[in-house]
Amino acid sequence: MTTHEVTPSGEINRRIRGLQEEMVKKEIDLAFVIQNVDLFYFSGSIQRGYLLVPSDGNAVFFVEKSYERAAGETPLKCIQTASLKALPGLVNEQGLRGTRVGFEFDVIPVALFNRIKTFFKEWEMVDLSPEIKKIRSIKSEFEISQIKKAGQIVTHVFSEVRNHLRQGMTEAELDGILASLGRTMGHQGLLRMRGLNQEMMNLHVLSGESASTMSHCDTPLGGYGTNPAIGQGSSMKKILADQPIVIDYGAGYNGYVTDETRTFVIGRLKSHFEKACQVALRMLAEMESSPGAGELPGHIYERMQQIAEREGLASNFMGYGQGQVSFVGHGLGLEINEWPIFRRGEKKPLVPGMVFAFEPKFVFPNEGAVGIELDFIVREKGLERVTEFPKDVVYL
Amino acid sequence: MTTHEVTPSGEINRRIRGLQEEMVKKEIDLAFVIQNVDLFYFSGSIQRGYLLVPSDGNAVFFVEKSYERAAGETPLKCIQTASLKALPGLVNEQGLRGTRVGFEFDVIPVALFNRIKTFFKEWEMVDLSPEIKKIRSIKSEFEISQIKKAGQIVTHVFSEVRNHLRQGMTEAELDGILASLGRTMGHQGLLRMRGLNQEMMNLHVLSGESASTMSHCDTPLGGYGTNPAIGQGSSMKKILADQPIVIDYGAGYNGYVTDETRTFVIGRLKSHFEKACQVALRMLAEMESSPGAGELPGHIYERMQQIAEREGLASNFMGYGQGQVSFVGHGLGLEINEWPIFRRGEKKPLVPGMVFAFEPKFVFPNEGAVGIELDFIVREKGLERVTEFPKDVVYL
Repeated sequence: MTTHEVTPSGEINRRIRGLQEEMVKKEIDLAFVIQNVDLFYFSGSIQRGYLLVPSDGNAVFFVEKSYERAAGETPLKCIQTASLKALPGLVNEQGLRGTRVGFEFDVIPVALFNRIKTFFKEWEMVDLSPEIKKIRSIKSEFEISQIKKAGQIVTHVFSEVRNHLRQGMTEAELDGILASLGRTMGHQGLLRMRGLNQEMMNLHVLSGESASTMSHCDTPLGGYGTNPAIGQGSSMKKILADQPIVIDYGAGYNGYVTDETRTFVIGRLKSHFEKACQVALRMLAEMESSPGAGELPGHIYERMQQIAEREGLASNFMGYGQGQVSFVGHGLGLEINEWPIFRRGEKKPLVPGMVFAFEPKFVFPNEGAVGIELDFIVREKGLERVTEFPKDVVYL
Repeated sequence: MTTHEVTPSGEINRRIRGLQEEMVKKEIDLAFVIQNVDLFYFSGSIQRGYLLVPSDGNAVFFVEKSYERAAGETPLKCIQTASLKALPGLVNEQGLRGTRVGFEFDVIPVALFNRIKTFFKEWEMVDLSPEIKKIRSIKSEFEISQIKKAGQIVTHVFSEVRNHLRQGMTEAELDGILASLGRTMGHQGLLRMRGLNQEMMNLHVLSGESASTMSHCDTPLGGYGTNPAIGQGSSMKKILADQPIVIDYGAGYNGYVTDETRTFVIGRLKSHFEKACQVALRMLAEMESSPGAGELPGHIYERMQQIAEREGLASNFMGYGQGQVSFVGHGLGLEINEWPIFRRGEKKPLVPGMVFAFEPKFVFPNEGAVGIELDFIVREKGLERVTEFPKDVVYL
C-alpha cells in the first residue's frame, strides 16, 4: 500500500473556492490560515507557513519550511518567507489586501495572535473557524477514497487480534502489537484531534474495569492509561478471561483517519454484557436504516437514547455518572473531532459527503464496557459503510 | 515496571510556591492554568479543569472531568465545576480575587481566551507562560528519577534493534516494532511538544536519503513520513544495506520523556559518514567536559560549530541548506521542547536540575545522515548522563 498520494489540484482549487464563498457571505476579505491540518486541507502541503486566501483572486502559500516540499505538494503559488516578521512586506508585494481578515480563533494561541496584530495593525481580525469546519465536514470522493484506505488498515488489524491476544498480557503490550501491525500497512501513526488539550492515542485497549475508568477525554470510555500524566487508554493492567476487551482503533492514511471499535473476550461474557452487545447491534441496525441526507443528528441521538431507556440501559449508555457523554457519534476526516456531532438538539441536518463514526457503547461501573463503533458516509439516500460490517460485536 | 506513581504532595507544594514567587515578582495576583501538561505539573493530575493559584494562599483545582480521578491524584483542594460558565461563581465563593491574572498565552487559543474574558470582565489578563517555562526547566530529584526510568526504556529498545532490523523492511515497520517494545515496558505512547502545530512522533526511523529529507519540524533531521499529511518521520521506504539508519526514540514514563538517537548500519558506512560519526563523538566528549551549572548554552553551541568548521562539516552540521537548524540541544521534561535551548547567543546560564538532549547530527543531501543524541542532567559540577553511554555511534 503506497501512501504517497498528493492531493489532486482540482481538489485544492475546489476547497479554496468553497472557502472564498464562505468568506463572501461573512464579508471577510482575506483568510489567514496557520494550523497545520487546515494548511494541508487547503494547500495539499503541511509544510510550515501562512496560507493567505483573498475572497476573490489567487491564494498564496508563504512557506517558512520546507519551501521545496511545499512547492512540490501544492498547486498554489508558493513564496518563501524567513519568518512572520518578513510577512507584511511579502503580503503587500503579492497585492493581498483587506480590512476584515479571518483567523482560526479556535486554535491560534493568544501570543501568536498578538504578534500577528503588531505586524498588521490595520486589520480587523475575525473568527473564520466555524466556516473552515463546515467546509471540511463535507468530503469529496477523493477524500472518501482516502478514508476507505484507512478503513482497510483498521479492518486488517481487527482481523489479526485473535492471533495476538493472550490472557495475562498487558493492555499496553497488545496496544503496541496492534499499532505495529497498522504501521506495517502504512498507518501514519498520528491521530489528530483539534483543539487545546485534545490528545488522542492511536488506539485504546481496555479490558474489564479499565474500560469503566473515567478520563479527562470527551469519550464514552476513558481508561486509566499507563500513568496519571497520560490518563487515558491502555494501561499496564493484565488482560483476563471472561472480561470484555474493548479495542478502539484509529488508523490514518494520507492524513485521513478512521475510528472504529470492536469488543472481544477470552472465554465468555456475563449476561448483562451480552445483552448490552445485542442492544449496541440493534442501535447499529437502527442507524443503518437512516434515510441519510437531511436527517438531524440530534434525532438520531434521541432515538438511540430511547432504545437504551427501553432496554433499561439508560444509565450505562455512553458512559455512566460523570463519565457519561452526550453524543453517540462524531464526524471524522483529517481530525477525529470534526462535524457533525450526534448529540441532543443538534439541528444541522446530515449532508451528502459527511463521514462519521457511530459508537453505541455501554459502561458498567467497576466492571467494564462493551460496544461497537463503525464509520459511515452520508449519501443522498441512506448511508454507506467505510469498512466491512462485523458479523458480531463479540469476536472471540 | 509499574507506572502508577502519583506525584508526591511535597513536589506539588514546592512547584506551587515556585509559581507564587514568580507571580509576586511580576505583580500577578492570580494564575489561571488550563493547558493539560501545566495542570499535571502544578497539580499532579491531568484531569480537565482550571487550576487557580493566588500569589498568596491556597491553590484550587476546579475540575470538569473527572473529579474523582483529580481528587485522588492531587493534594490540592478540588472543586467540581460543570463548565467554564459556572466558574465565576465558584471562584468568588473560594475567595480567589485579583486584578492582574496570568494565563498561558503561548498555548491558550483566542476563542477560549475571549470566552474567559466575557466571564471575568474586570480582569487584566497577562502572559504567565515564560515564568511557567522557567520553573518547569529546573527538575527536582523526583522528576529526574522519572526521566531516568524513561531512559531505561530507551536503552532497552536500542539494545533490541539488532534483533529486529532486517534489510528490505520498511522504516515504518521497524518503527512499529520498536514502539511496541517500548509500550510493553510501559512507555506512555505520547511524546508531548508544546505549542501550535508542534507534533512529534514517538520515534523516527530514517534510512539513507530519508534522513536528508527536510520537514516542517524544527529538527535537524526530518524524514518524509508515511504521507504528505504527516510530513515527518518513518516512511514506507525500504531499509537498505550500507546506508546509515538513524533512530531517534522518545520514551515517556509517568509523563517524563527522554529523547535519544543512535546510528545503525547493515554492512558498512561510506568514509564521510564514518568521519561524521567520529566528529559527533568528539562533540559529545567536548559536551561532557562542560563545567555544568553556570555555563552558557550559547557558548556550547558555538564550540560545536567551531568543531564542525574545523572538520569541514559546517554545511552538514544540524541539517543542510534551509533544513539547517540553529541549535544543538534542547531541554526536556514533560514536553520535549523545554528550556534551555543550546543555540547561538543563548545567554541564560545552565542551572542545576536542568535536563537536556544534546544531539550533534550531520546531514548529507540526498544521501543520509548520522549522529547521536544523549540526555544530560546539569549538576553543580559537570553533567550527569540520563542513560548508559553507547560504546560507539555506529551499532551494527
